[in-house]
Formats: sequence, C-alpha cells, structure tokens
Amino acid sequence: MRKIDVCLSPELFHLHDARGKIVVIVDVLRATTCMVTAFQVGVKSVIPVATVEECSDYQQKQGWIAAGERNGEKIPEFDMGNSPYDYLNQNLTDKTVVITTTNGTKAINQAKEAAQIVIGAFLNVTAVANYLLQQNQDVIILCSGWKGKVNLEDTLFAGALIEQIQTHFMPESDVPLMTVTLFQAMKHDLVGFIKKASHGERLKKLSHADDTAYCCKIDTTQIVPILKGKELVVNK
Amino acid sequence: MRKIDVCLSPELFHLHDARGKIVVIVDVLRATTCMVTAFQVGVKSVIPVATVEECSDYQQKQGWIAAGERNGEKIPEFDMGNSPYDYLNQNLTDKTVVITTTNGTKAINQAKEAAQIVIGAFLNVTAVANYLLQQNQDVIILCSGWKGKVNLEDTLFAGALIEQIQTHFMPESDVPLMTVTLFQAMKHDLVGFIKKASHGERLKKLSHADDTAYCCKIDTTQIVPILKGKELVVNK
Repeated sequence: MRKIDVCLSPELFHLHDARGKIVVIVDVLRATTCMVTAFQVGVKSVIPVATVEECSDYQQKQGWIAAGERNGEKIPEFDMGNSPYDYLNQNLTDKTVVITTTNGTKAINQAKEAAQIVIGAFLNVTAVANYLLQQNQDVIILCSGWKGKVNLEDTLFAGALIEQIQTHFMPESDVPLMTVTLFQAMKHDLVGFIKKASHGERLKKLSHADDTAYCCKIDTTQIVPILKGKELVVNK
Repeated sequence: MRKIDVCLSPELFHLHDARGKIVVIVDVLRATTCMVTAFQVGVKSVIPVATVEECSDYQQKQGWIAAGERNGEKIPEFDMGNSPYDYLNQNLTDKTVVITTTNGTKAINQAKEAAQIVIGAFLNVTAVANYLLQQNQDVIILCSGWKGKVNLEDTLFAGALIEQIQTHFMPESDVPLMTVTLFQAMKHDLVGFIKKASHGERLKKLSHADDTAYCCKIDTTQIVPILKGKELVVNK
C-alpha cells in the first residue's frame, strides 16, 4: 500500500525522505492559493523563486511579472503582492509570473529531491486528491507554516486532502490522523477558525481580510499545478 | 496577559525563546510518565541525562539506579527500562534514579534556558495546570515527539493542559487552539486513539502494550516534578 505523511513545517522536512515521492506543497494564506489562481486566470507559467533578488532579476531581464511579499506585505518594486485579488484584477493571459513569498516558495525549494512537486490549496483540493489517486507513488504533504512555526490553515488543508484519499494510503506517522481529525472538527466553520488564527489576524491588520475568505473556498477549479524544471505548469 | 505556546517537536524549539518562561516537558510514552511515577513511589530525586554514557557513569561511580531506553528497548546494563511498571514493581524509596531516553531527556536538555522546567504527563495534568496558574510566567509546552517527528500522545497532552488554563493565557501561535481542538475530539477514547497511533503500535511490538493504558491515566497524582540544577525534585 502507498504511504502518506504530513510535514507540518519546513523545519521538519529534513526528517522525511522525499526521493521517489510526490510532495504536495501548501501555503493556503496565500502563496499556493495565488499560484492556483494564476492558472485560473490564464497565465502561461509560474516560476517560484526563493529570494527577492532572483525575482527582481527576472522582472528586469525577462520582463516577467514579479509577484510576492515579505512579512505579508507587497515588495515595492514588484508588479503584484501576494493577494489572489492581485491576480483576479488584471489581465494575465499567457503571461509568466515569477513569485517569491516568506514561506511558500521556500518550501518548494526544499522539496527539490521529490519525484513530483504538486501545488495544493483549498481551491483545488479535490483535484489534487484525484491526481494523487491516479499516481502510484507515496505522498508527503508539506505545510509551509509561518516562519518555521506550524499554522492552522495549512494543517487543515492536509486534513481535507487526506480525508479524501486515506483509504488508499498507509500513514507513516501520527500526523495524517491528527490533521484529518482537526479538519473534521473545524470544517463546519473553516473561514471562521482560520480568520481567528494568527495569520488571519495578520492579514486583517494588513487590510487583506477578504483574502482569507477567498483562500478558504473549496474546489473552485480542477487545475493542478505541477513543477516541471523550474516552472509550474498545469497538469493536462 | 500571560502568553502560552506549544512546540510540537524538539526540532522546532529553536523558534521559541524560552528565557523567562516556564517550559513544560512532556513525553507521555514514556519518559515523563516514568518520572512522575518515580516520585509517586517515593524516589528522592530523578536526574535526566542526554546520553547512555553519562547514565552508566553515574550508575557505576555513584551507585544510582540507571534507567532508560533507546528505540523503546531497555539498555542491557541498566537497572530499569523505560516502563512505568519497572518503577512500580520494586522498592525505590529514597533512591536516586538517573534516566536517559530517546526523546524525553533530550527535550529537557534543550530547554535549559527556561526560567523553570516542569515535567508533565496525563498522570499529573491537573496538578501541572494548577501549578502554572499559580505562577506569573509565560508558558511553552514542549512535546518530545518521536525522533523529531510530531506525535499524537504528546500533542493530546498539550491540548488537555491548555483546555484547563486557556482563559488565563493568550496563545502565541495557532498551535494551542489546534491541540485543544484535537484533545476535545479524541478525549472520549484517549487510550484507543493513542494505542492505534504509531508509538502505541511500537510498544505493542515491544510487549509493552499495558504501558499505553497506564500512561493515559489522568490525574492519579498531585505531584509536579521541577528541575532544580541537574535534578528533578518535587514541588512542595
């Protein structure tokens, strides 16, 4: 039977062996939600990078759209911040977006040894579940957390995903069961719990309260972004 | 208002600042349960050490009782393993026990910067809660986990403890809420869930299935072991 595990923080990822496995990266608030949204509005590709400098470099030399944040705030010289509404409010058809965020893009860089890297968010959770069921590989869900600390929204996403596929996988630790139990206890008011959590509060202070509700929408798309080389593309 | 946080794994403890705070160490299966049990049966003091070598050294030079395990199994030259029944089945009145375990004693060594280190287990959870309420300090609950990975039983202990004191503390991250919610979802069958979890299964394989039920008993004592210098003593 295939195995599944959840890594609750990038700081714990060295305890996992990603080789030969699919790693699902999640940063619900807001990096992976933005990546899924980008493909929903028709971008050609998304390139996640770890640093602000790399992102600026691509913006200047390639003319790509630079997006991202540090500590939740837009980087001044970038075209977009890290709000999904930045993607919804302009025409990005066939554009290339290069993105860096505090936690989410770092998690992607950490998982480079994986056989496949898949981008998950509540927006595409069932699509990701169906994709995983079609593959014949072990799975690790890597939660981006907040500056290394475990957070609520990414943990709940792990639970939502595992709830859909758990009968096909054997858990490699206690964490899969813990995330499913937590999701089942909170799913009646997902937005409410996440708004009250630390990052929901942080976004409210940054005047991005609407983002939280958007990021908690479930199954608005069938798109599953997958990393090919350095860029994310849509699985057809 | 005082602050509270939970560190789900020793691998995440560097993200916390323990200075001026009380750190509650928990390793339900089985190090901290054994430490509490040791005081219940009347030992004079318990000395946690990080390595098998230190433990052997004290055994040979001081004549102290050496206890502990690696990977769940007793260390051959030691007097006792890491089962609470090892403590219950012999006369340890006024003895000094020196103990090393895979995860629990390492967590204690990590928290040395804390203002106070307190030992928690289900056996004394309400006593620890009352102790924390009497102090005027911020609190971090440090879960020992299993070889760096997050585990169920220590996370549930954190939830059980926070449930009792949460109205007096402000959470420093999402984790306190997550642990309380998980505890409330599982407390109707704590032993059942923990037996099914990975370490419960591991103990079953090592013929220590009874240990799990013992370690899940709630409030069998009012004893709160506290670290003074290098030794644990009982708070009077």
